[in-house]
Amino acid sequence: MYLRDEIAQQPAVIERLFNEGQEATEAAATAIRDFNPPFVCIAARGTSDHAAVYAQYLFGHALSLPVMLATPSLHTVYKRPADLSQALVIGISQSGKAEDVRAVLADARRGGALTLAITNFDDSPLAQAAELHLPLRAEREFSVAATKTYTAQLTVIAMLASALADEQARWDDLAAVPGLAREALEQSQPIADWAERYRYSGKLVTLGRGYNYATALEISLKVKELTYIASAGYSEADFRHGPIAVIDRGHPVILVAPQGPTLAGMVDMAKGLRERDAETLIISNDDDLLRAGTQALPIPAAPEWLSPIISVMPGQVYAMQQALARGYEVDKPRGLSKVTITE
Amino acid sequence: MYLRDEIAQQPAVIERLFNEGQEATEAAATAIRDFNPPFVCIAARGTSDHAAVYAQYLFGHALSLPVMLATPSLHTVYKRPADLSQALVIGISQSGKAEDVRAVLADARRGGALTLAITNFDDSPLAQAAELHLPLRAEREFSVAATKTYTAQLTVIAMLASALADEQARWDDLAAVPGLAREALEQSQPIADWAERYRYSGKLVTLGRGYNYATALEISLKVKELTYIASAGYSEADFRHGPIAVIDRGHPVILVAPQGPTLAGMVDMAKGLRERDAETLIISNDDDLLRAGTQALPIPAAPEWLSPIISVMPGQVYAMQQALARGYEVDKPRGLSKVTITE
Repeated sequence: MYLRDEIAQQPAVIERLFNEGQEATEAAATAIRDFNPPFVCIAARGTSDHAAVYAQYLFGHALSLPVMLATPSLHTVYKRPADLSQALVIGISQSGKAEDVRAVLADARRGGALTLAITNFDDSPLAQAAELHLPLRAEREFSVAATKTYTAQLTVIAMLASALADEQARWDDLAAVPGLAREALEQSQPIADWAERYRYSGKLVTLGRGYNYATALEISLKVKELTYIASAGYSEADFRHGPIAVIDRGHPVILVAPQGPTLAGMVDMAKGLRERDAETLIISNDDDLLRAGTQALPIPAAPEWLSPIISVMPGQVYAMQQALARGYEVDKPRGLSKVTITE
Repeated sequence: MYLRDEIAQQPAVIERLFNEGQEATEAAATAIRDFNPPFVCIAARGTSDHAAVYAQYLFGHALSLPVMLATPSLHTVYKRPADLSQALVIGISQSGKAEDVRAVLADARRGGALTLAITNFDDSPLAQAAELHLPLRAEREFSVAATKTYTAQLTVIAMLASALADEQARWDDLAAVPGLAREALEQSQPIADWAERYRYSGKLVTLGRGYNYATALEISLKVKELTYIASAGYSEADFRHGPIAVIDRGHPVILVAPQGPTLAGMVDMAKGLRERDAETLIISNDDDLLRAGTQALPIPAAPEWLSPIISVMPGQVYAMQQALARGYEVDKPRGLSKVTITE
């Protein structure tokens, strides 16, 4: 099973990136500093789009850099895109073959923007279209559901932010991530023992906030791709504004709630969900919150800005175990192919 | 029933805005032109956030202005927001009481940004926090599910884009919208006759692209708020990248597909969905596409950039009729209140 192997490879991929990718990252950071953009625009689809959401929070928080997500249809369908000439424009795509992501970078580069590709293939169209390229060094991913390339994308973004912030403390934090990832996967083993309880659930909500909003979105997508159920990821704050109405007795909800400034809001949300008799599946490193959930998905303590790299892992394992419990093909979900070329 | 009345009031609200709001809009446009921002940042939650998505496409397409959606938690939870000093920062909130939206505007204004509030109440905290205010003139909305304030928000944004573009043709297009809205509501009457078919459906997907990506998101939220089912809105392009795996026989899918550059992709998607034996509910003004769907939700022909104001209306009516078919309280859905003050 490729998926199981690729989930297990993540600590090694992150470690390789950390060891081999620093030089290229520092060079990209120098070019970006010289360009001095007032804002960043990121183009990406699917899983890669969730890496873009992580960058929105990290670049905003650590670098005061506003990040917008691109609107690719303005480039490909309407052929009249916004003026990105002052921006750093980043394209993220595992395969590097996402045609609309390439189009955003090509338009932006022609207009004078600084362009950067983040892909797993040096010779991909996206990598060729951009002035700068940061490779994922994740080796080929065979499973249709992306796992190791997602955490590699997050790691590249975290390394780039560290280089741009020029803070040694960030690099020191990053050095610990491969070990934390190993621990997170170890702690995710027991999921196999209770995943069956949700064998017949037809819906799922996943919640996060701030840095881990991206994690909620990504776990929701993995569950959709692998188990075909109606799964939706939300910012905890947005969820209060309407979607919370869907919660009734027994509705499974995954809360991504590591320690940090967003924890208090997530604890409050968990309480509200229990009052509605929801089933809460808690991904956290806070013991009190873990104890209060229907299921505990513990992760090791980590600096919050790096927590998305490890907090997604129990979610990946949960999605895989659900697919196995349902007897589904995990490496090749129905109706999906590895490379989706949207124009 | 407030909801039914407020849906019906929409043509009159849009007409009032068009007649009474032009002067304030031109004044705001002058201030924005003087400020000359390289990009726009919009803060909003829930339904208002979908108006922000519409602005992303309209400002990008008509004005070449890149638009980012704010990350409010950087302001309220992390207290270290991105540098928005060069941006036009817009806050959208029906009540004007969304505390995190206000916080984004207050931070941005302190930093030197130009700030604009779009709300239904002149004396609201959000209107007070901004330098510029464009009121919705929609009179009080009593139903928890927002309808007339949403189409009023879209209209304000369309008027602002027309003033900034300084094109008389856009104002001429806008003048026709109240009449088109009346027609759209008239054409939505038959929904009551067949809504019952979906009485027991527990899930829904809504799809749009470009200008009507916002419409797909908004219809999905209305259905969630009023019928509590697992409903998810997607860009048609994103949907191909994974979520399409959830579609099996009988899965209801609403496609928002008016004529324009995005129609071809939506037609292709509708074909793929029929091959998966999905139930397709088509909101369109293209006769061929309407005929090919399980249900036709016709709307009048309209310039694509204004189509979101009317294409949402059959979706509002569908959500209401579903709630009625299920015997739910439509004005006060379970567990929701009209004003949600997220911090």
